[in-house]
Amino acid sequence: MRRSARTAPAALTPLADHVDPAWLPSEAFRALGSRRTVVCGTGALVDTVHGEVAWACGAFGGSVVRAEEPADDRPCDLLLHLGERLDAPEPLGDEGFTLVRRRGRTTVTAAGQRGLLYGLFHVVRLGEAAFGASRAREAHRPALASRMLDHWDNVAVHPVMGQVERGYAGGSLFWRDGRARGDLERVRTYGRLLAACGINAVAVNNVNVHATEAHLLTDRIGEVAEIAGALRPYGIRTQLSVTFAAPLVLGGLATADPLDEAVRAWWAEATGRVYAAIPDFGGYVVKADSEGQPGPFAYGRSHADGANLLADALAPYGGTVHWRAFVYDHRQDWRDRSTDRARAAYDHFVPLDGRFRDNAVLQVKHGPMDFQVREPVSPVIGAMPRTRLAVEVQATQEYTGQQRHVCALAPMWSQVLRWRPEGATGTSVGELARGGLVAVSNAGDDPYWTGHPLAQANLYTVGRLGWQPDADPFGLLDEWIDLTFTPARTEAPERLVAGLRAVLYRSWRTYEKYTAPLGVGFMVQPGHHYGPSVDGYEYSPWGTYHFADRDGVGVDRTRATGTGYAGQYAKPWAEVYESPDTCPDELLLFFHHVPYGHVLHSGRTVIQHIYDTHFEGVAEVEEARQVWASLVDLVEPARHTRVAERYEEQLRGAREWRDHINSYFFRKSGVPDAHGRRIH
Amino acid sequence: MRRSARTAPAALTPLADHVDPAWLPSEAFRALGSRRTVVCGTGALVDTVHGEVAWACGAFGGSVVRAEEPADDRPCDLLLHLGERLDAPEPLGDEGFTLVRRRGRTTVTAAGQRGLLYGLFHVVRLGEAAFGASRAREAHRPALASRMLDHWDNVAVHPVMGQVERGYAGGSLFWRDGRARGDLERVRTYGRLLAACGINAVAVNNVNVHATEAHLLTDRIGEVAEIAGALRPYGIRTQLSVTFAAPLVLGGLATADPLDEAVRAWWAEATGRVYAAIPDFGGYVVKADSEGQPGPFAYGRSHADGANLLADALAPYGGTVHWRAFVYDHRQDWRDRSTDRARAAYDHFVPLDGRFRDNAVLQVKHGPMDFQVREPVSPVIGAMPRTRLAVEVQATQEYTGQQRHVCALAPMWSQVLRWRPEGATGTSVGELARGGLVAVSNAGDDPYWTGHPLAQANLYTVGRLGWQPDADPFGLLDEWIDLTFTPARTEAPERLVAGLRAVLYRSWRTYEKYTAPLGVGFMVQPGHHYGPSVDGYEYSPWGTYHFADRDGVGVDRTRATGTGYAGQYAKPWAEVYESPDTCPDELLLFFHHVPYGHVLHSGRTVIQHIYDTHFEGVAEVEEARQVWASLVDLVEPARHTRVAERYEEQLRGAREWRDHINSYFFRKSGVPDAHGRRIH
Repeated sequence: MRRSARTAPAALTPLADHVDPAWLPSEAFRALGSRRTVVCGTGALVDTVHGEVAWACGAFGGSVVRAEEPADDRPCDLLLHLGERLDAPEPLGDEGFTLVRRRGRTTVTAAGQRGLLYGLFHVVRLGEAAFGASRAREAHRPALASRMLDHWDNVAVHPVMGQVERGYAGGSLFWRDGRARGDLERVRTYGRLLAACGINAVAVNNVNVHATEAHLLTDRIGEVAEIAGALRPYGIRTQLSVTFAAPLVLGGLATADPLDEAVRAWWAEATGRVYAAIPDFGGYVVKADSEGQPGPFAYGRSHADGANLLADALAPYGGTVHWRAFVYDHRQDWRDRSTDRARAAYDHFVPLDGRFRDNAVLQVKHGPMDFQVREPVSPVIGAMPRTRLAVEVQATQEYTGQQRHVCALAPMWSQVLRWRPEGATGTSVGELARGGLVAVSNAGDDPYWTGHPLAQANLYTVGRLGWQPDADPFGLLDEWIDLTFTPARTEAPERLVAGLRAVLYRSWRTYEKYTAPLGVGFMVQPGHHYGPSVDGYEYSPWGTYHFADRDGVGVDRTRATGTGYAGQYAKPWAEVYESPDTCPDELLLFFHHVPYGHVLHSGRTVIQHIYDTHFEGVAEVEEARQVWASLVDLVEPARHTRVAERYEEQLRGAREWRDHINSYFFRKSGVPDAHGRRIH
Repeated sequence: MRRSARTAPAALTPLADHVDPAWLPSEAFRALGSRRTVVCGTGALVDTVHGEVAWACGAFGGSVVRAEEPADDRPCDLLLHLGERLDAPEPLGDEGFTLVRRRGRTTVTAAGQRGLLYGLFHVVRLGEAAFGASRAREAHRPALASRMLDHWDNVAVHPVMGQVERGYAGGSLFWRDGRARGDLERVRTYGRLLAACGINAVAVNNVNVHATEAHLLTDRIGEVAEIAGALRPYGIRTQLSVTFAAPLVLGGLATADPLDEAVRAWWAEATGRVYAAIPDFGGYVVKADSEGQPGPFAYGRSHADGANLLADALAPYGGTVHWRAFVYDHRQDWRDRSTDRARAAYDHFVPLDGRFRDNAVLQVKHGPMDFQVREPVSPVIGAMPRTRLAVEVQATQEYTGQQRHVCALAPMWSQVLRWRPEGATGTSVGELARGGLVAVSNAGDDPYWTGHPLAQANLYTVGRLGWQPDADPFGLLDEWIDLTFTPARTEAPERLVAGLRAVLYRSWRTYEKYTAPLGVGFMVQPGHHYGPSVDGYEYSPWGTYHFADRDGVGVDRTRATGTGYAGQYAKPWAEVYESPDTCPDELLLFFHHVPYGHVLHSGRTVIQHIYDTHFEGVAEVEEARQVWASLVDLVEPARHTRVAERYEEQLRGAREWRDHINSYFFRKSGVPDAHGRRIH
């Protein structure tokens, strides 16, 4: 990594040579670092802010001083001011800030230290634009108070799932072979990157809590505290995934019944010890009664009982429990067509609306299934007005190319967050997500953090969408491009930006085209979920079926003749989805079983759509690969090479998907391609 | 295991309580142990023979004495005599023996110690019949000189394959977690069981030789020597699987080229050290250029060059190299229909006929693919008259129910061994297998040795078929029943024998019925190979396809229009297989792609055959389960319970197979079941 020497480090010590600066290369600090800055205020995060500016000035020749109070007569290009708002009455909270530029001075004001930190990174994002023409006062604050990453990291290497479950970026940043890695410098650097995109909480272990990991809650809390200490200077709170069976497996109790007094006392005491070790601890994350994890069902209790147990234990300290709504029957009989996994979260949780504590957040996957490339938005969102819901998305690309394929997910996430459960005049998902946005992290100890260098864009944009769910996702991708590649410093900025947009903007649609068509999902190899297997989950207990036969394909989820799932939506969506005439093409097979000859709104038949999109998808990958190749003179060699290598694999994989899917449906339908292309 | 106290132990010390006596329960020794026996001769194996008789007499009141010479006037029911044949001129070799009963005395005579041991176990098998009416002199000798078990046991637990690759009987008898287990008593007991069924060689480690296992050849040969020492008293030689890359990975040489002088010297020296540690070492087993294992192809050398390298190193000591013929392209493109894995062994090896050393054995899987429930016999067998071929079968039930399903394989193996490559008047496979019979062992440290107690029958019968390849397989199953269950000692011998016959005799055909139809094979879940997945290997690189589409199914392997595989057979088989009119029904889809409406010789269409056999197969499992349940009063409780539990799983599995296969073909063909049964 030739550019690493120019990287801005956390805590002002040099990073290991091999760690990529991601969206915080030193070049991104040039505008800031060449100015005169005054930092006003005191506190640990103000120290962080000052350190960042000082480092930038060291690199680019500017200056920074600290002052107790702002002074108009001091020569200064940038004032970073922690204190009462000078010119803004409305409260922006601990994380908000204002920015104004007048008379050649840019002023960032925040009431809280986190706000000042976010203001600083806003200035970094603006670059020279922060120091140009005057700017009227802008107020910034996050739309969602909680913007969390879930790390599915195991402490001990799991015999099947490895060190990081669904991890495609090397090992864990936190754990290795049963122990904390202790590389707190890297954790701190990670926290810095996260702060710069708006993340403010990290859950440091897998929601599947195995035997070793259970102990993080009690005798191994010290290891969590060390991580929390490394993340704290960047305003990030630490959360912990815990097992609902903790009172049994750690406490030696005979039950984990959430209504049992001894159980409640055990959690209260355990939580007290956690806060003694980590005073700003964020709270718990729980996967209960899900895919084999223990939960309240074993005691005849509801998930509200379960979540409230932990919420009550956390309440005295201001902590929050994130309770996952991913509850379904994973031992379903595929012969049973009356059970529909898509219905499960709604059926389980909507009746509990209003029964959760204020500090219990119900964490709902954005779609009803499991992070497929195309799903409808979960009908749970919008159906529980008296519950704090968090929307969970997956930055780690389990079903979208596993960071070997380019798949920029911001456009998909944005579509979810802007969707309106009640229809065009209703509230959006982003507004309904009062419990925040949660993303399964795609980062690991890979030198590029995310395996595929372009997958950094997913980590960046998910944080930014948490801050502003209605942001233009392509604008966020542009931000990431600007910071990461600093095109203005290259010989051909327009060509570089155009090239990066070409490989990123449509990459999700491209991935969709060459993989599972029309919302059908789950045509993946069982277990590892990489690569195609149309019937891989068709005769399985996982509730994931497409019902393809020689006549047609898709799942009838209508109220009239199917599983009734479409009826879980409010009008008008329930009506839109109920009929193949109104159902959007891209979700047709999610809601309907149709003949191969069914004509889509696009005018193509389903079978011809399958053929066409698969040929198109591969062609688009070929194009993207060419575009990337053409940027060789504008991208640092190591990064260019790694992406180029991954494009080889993506192209191989896309062709495999194309041929597998097309052959499968050709063999089944017998319908030849209208254009006579080769189908094996 | 309540009966274990009555078990005859190896070396006269009690076995651990939990180890099943298998086909050598003490009851099997009653006839012998209640007689007066004289043992004549000296040597370690004669000591073994004497120890066996002494133990039996201790249990049943008989007596045994040792004598230097047989004496007619000594009161004696059984004379076990190592020495010159008294009444038989023809040589029976080291392993043969004669048996005669005259004037109330049974005499077993052998020229070699092994022969005496086999004679002893023959007397055990005969039971009371050995001491009844006079018997004319019978000469016994093994048809095949080598009867070997290959253990696919890893020393270190493999991250994917575990301690025993394709092991369904617990851990390894030899290794645990990277080290020799050191439980030599159990190894000795194993050797005793093997001697009693005719096995005379054991390869103690996996043919896939990983990093740890490679060292068994050199610095860890002492661990092999200890195992060899435990097996030696029962006449069993030890073999070792070695990596062809040993000169590189162990010797530090820059090449493993079989024609390189330094490589040849390295192998000679390494082999000398092996024999210094194990003077009666049997030789090497090699999987080369196969599924990722290194081999001579890397150096542009032939497999004859590779095998002869090791044969030359072993020759001074009388050792043999078993060179596996399982060489094929496991990274095939499924889109490439011109490559046919079935052809591979023939294409690779037949041109090398006559080029292998006399002490090189080419070990050929019995079928051209990989131990499917139904395959044609490999065309290699019979096509290499100037090469010593061994036939490899798989006692471990990788593709035949993994010792959770009953599948007695002797009828299948017998069919292979009695098959005649040149047609009815030609030589049989059993006669052509001059290099012996090799079976992948199904034994592990499970208390019943084989996981499923009834899978012991496979271990027993494979040894017996090596001794006598033309034996009636049902007769061998009866032998196993007699020894293991000693029905004569139960209250209802006929019912017990009839019941056991009912569950065993047709179990292979039953398994075939509910799994992959008409020879098509490989419709299994990828990786672990348990349970159905029709397309699991259809779009894979493994060369295992069925090409099912909406019109038909099967692989065209004819000369006329297919891959030409059928032409690898000698007449008349090449002609028989070439046409669907003459091809046996059970292999139809192996050789031909036919429409679902194709009418079989049975009069049924292919699709109706699929439906019918799958319903029949499940019904037969239900029947067998009932039969087993009816034997509850005649089988010791622990054994009965374990088999009954496995029948539950077998029935669940059979139903899963039935419904999966039937649904798949119904969805694809659209043809309804003629009998209107439920297809999902």
